[in-house]
Amino acid sequence: MRVCNFSAGPGCLPLPVLEKIRNEMVEHEDHGMSVMEMSHRTQMFYDIFYPAQDLLKKIMNIPDNYKILFLTGGATTQNSMIPMNLMKNKKADYVNTGVWSEKSIKEAKRFGDIKVVASSEDRMYNYIPTLDASTFRPDADYFHITTNNTIYGTRYTQLPNTGNVPLVADMSSNIMSETGPLMDVQNFGLIYAGAQKNIGPSGVTVVIVREDLIGNALPFTPDMMDYSVHVKANYIYNTPPTFAIYVVKLCLEWLQEQGGIAGIEKVNNYKAGILYDFLDNSKLFIPSAEKESRSLMNITCTLSTKDLEAKFIKEAGENGFVNLKGYKTVGGLRISMYNAQPAENVEKLVEFMKKFELQNK
Amino acid sequence: MRVCNFSAGPGCLPLPVLEKIRNEMVEHEDHGMSVMEMSHRTQMFYDIFYPAQDLLKKIMNIPDNYKILFLTGGATTQNSMIPMNLMKNKKADYVNTGVWSEKSIKEAKRFGDIKVVASSEDRMYNYIPTLDASTFRPDADYFHITTNNTIYGTRYTQLPNTGNVPLVADMSSNIMSETGPLMDVQNFGLIYAGAQKNIGPSGVTVVIVREDLIGNALPFTPDMMDYSVHVKANYIYNTPPTFAIYVVKLCLEWLQEQGGIAGIEKVNNYKAGILYDFLDNSKLFIPSAEKESRSLMNITCTLSTKDLEAKFIKEAGENGFVNLKGYKTVGGLRISMYNAQPAENVEKLVEFMKKFELQNK
Repeated sequence: MRVCNFSAGPGCLPLPVLEKIRNEMVEHEDHGMSVMEMSHRTQMFYDIFYPAQDLLKKIMNIPDNYKILFLTGGATTQNSMIPMNLMKNKKADYVNTGVWSEKSIKEAKRFGDIKVVASSEDRMYNYIPTLDASTFRPDADYFHITTNNTIYGTRYTQLPNTGNVPLVADMSSNIMSETGPLMDVQNFGLIYAGAQKNIGPSGVTVVIVREDLIGNALPFTPDMMDYSVHVKANYIYNTPPTFAIYVVKLCLEWLQEQGGIAGIEKVNNYKAGILYDFLDNSKLFIPSAEKESRSLMNITCTLSTKDLEAKFIKEAGENGFVNLKGYKTVGGLRISMYNAQPAENVEKLVEFMKKFELQNK
Repeated sequence: MRVCNFSAGPGCLPLPVLEKIRNEMVEHEDHGMSVMEMSHRTQMFYDIFYPAQDLLKKIMNIPDNYKILFLTGGATTQNSMIPMNLMKNKKADYVNTGVWSEKSIKEAKRFGDIKVVASSEDRMYNYIPTLDASTFRPDADYFHITTNNTIYGTRYTQLPNTGNVPLVADMSSNIMSETGPLMDVQNFGLIYAGAQKNIGPSGVTVVIVREDLIGNALPFTPDMMDYSVHVKANYIYNTPPTFAIYVVKLCLEWLQEQGGIAGIEKVNNYKAGILYDFLDNSKLFIPSAEKESRSLMNITCTLSTKDLEAKFIKEAGENGFVNLKGYKTVGGLRISMYNAQPAENVEKLVEFMKKFELQNK
């Protein structure tokens, strides 16, 4: 029996996608082979790769002057690729909203003058700092934010106005989760996201980059780290992670069937809504993030004691609710509900939490 | 019906592996989830990752003083990672045996003094140059070779004696294909291989590196490009390509069932033997590589005219033999038969080639 999997990433995938993968595992369509056995230089693979790109473009309404890359190495690799490609004046500004921001900052510092212009470290990263035009340096090459912070359960609820400075966003954990300006590609110079939370499986990283930002890589940049090399090679410079890209395509098709981002946003608001409602009315569970910075994807909370948290996690596990433990440095609980998380799983979890509260008050 | 797939990479996979993946796609063992949905920080994934590492160690008889990494970015990424990590004196020697060597050389040149000490470019890369101790510089940081050249169908049949200079090998296309000193890990400082030919699917790259070569990365090396960072993180620094590593594990289990490298070597010699025998006796098909440098994995040949080659490829395709076309810059035919290629497919192909010769003489 399938469990209710609240993993922060890799996250659960839509069951119909898994079933489709299973059904065409040994022979894909009429090709007489698995997707994993296809040469990446054949039409049968192009029929997976380029439609996946087109579908992402359509779902996210990506303007024509942006390039869509399917790379490897995760968001962590982008932490160095971005400065190597975008920092032509060796100056960039970063906002620190937690562990992933810190990693981005650490890597960027190898390549130039990095200023941390705002931080929420003072309150354990449980909020997003207020940013305005005066926050960042107007001559910076770019301005970097992490739109959703899995560990602390926070997300940006408004974008800074960066004028002519390109806004760069690590959107790994909430890409394609809501409509509006927060996710409107034209507000960004570059968006990147490891696929394993809201796009598909691990092993592929999506980069959406405005074309005027491509072509200025630092002199020692390896070919694999240079966006322009990938673009010039029709997006397939070396052997890509073919199977992971195929799964991305299936997940995007599934998302489209849910009504695209507008459709899934309703589900996401519903799922987060019932859980936050419960937490706000609970006397046992204490939500961690400040209200105005709450994530729709990762909901964090604590109980009054470590023992009670351990008891909850144990009993939840016995009832088929898994991966609820908070990040190692933070503790508490973390409930991740990316696009593929069925609303039914969240409803069941809330019921279970209510019962647990009754039994443990 | 499954075709006979002679792709040069990604290559075909063992059918029992594909069937096992299919059978446990929706629920892996008793975990109630797919492998793709597992958090990489859980025991259930460690039970895939570390046994895969152990199995590779066992099959290749890797000594204890070597580290085994599952990375991403393909062999192409290693072309820059190797100099960034190993070139502490900024001096390395390379042998040019074709396109992949050229790519390795091009990347390495960004980081130091690279000398191409031998090349087979003079005869269209159809042989491996003779190398001895005087070939390379004794104060080089390493000496780089490409053990098998997919495009030209050549392979090293003896290793140079490099003394104290570590030998670094791109073994992407013939790793684990034969026994003897050519594949004996202790003869190398570092071995790397994209998985999609002889290990598993695309999306994961194996690096086997002697531990004394780790820890000297150039100052600007990104964390993701630094071998020591991966080792210190117990080999899982960021989210790895979880599913690709799972498939690698299944392929290694399959290889072990074939009797390991000694077992598969017999099959590889048989497959290459019947095809080379046919080519050596054919008046229509002309083998491309020189006899003493012949690959067991990729067999290249030409026919007397381009028209005849096109006719062969077309008719072969109609009969279920696919991906036989030579590399774009070389032309002719290329028949790839990695470990997972069933002997039966090669037998059928030879029969088909014989028939074609009879009909077209």
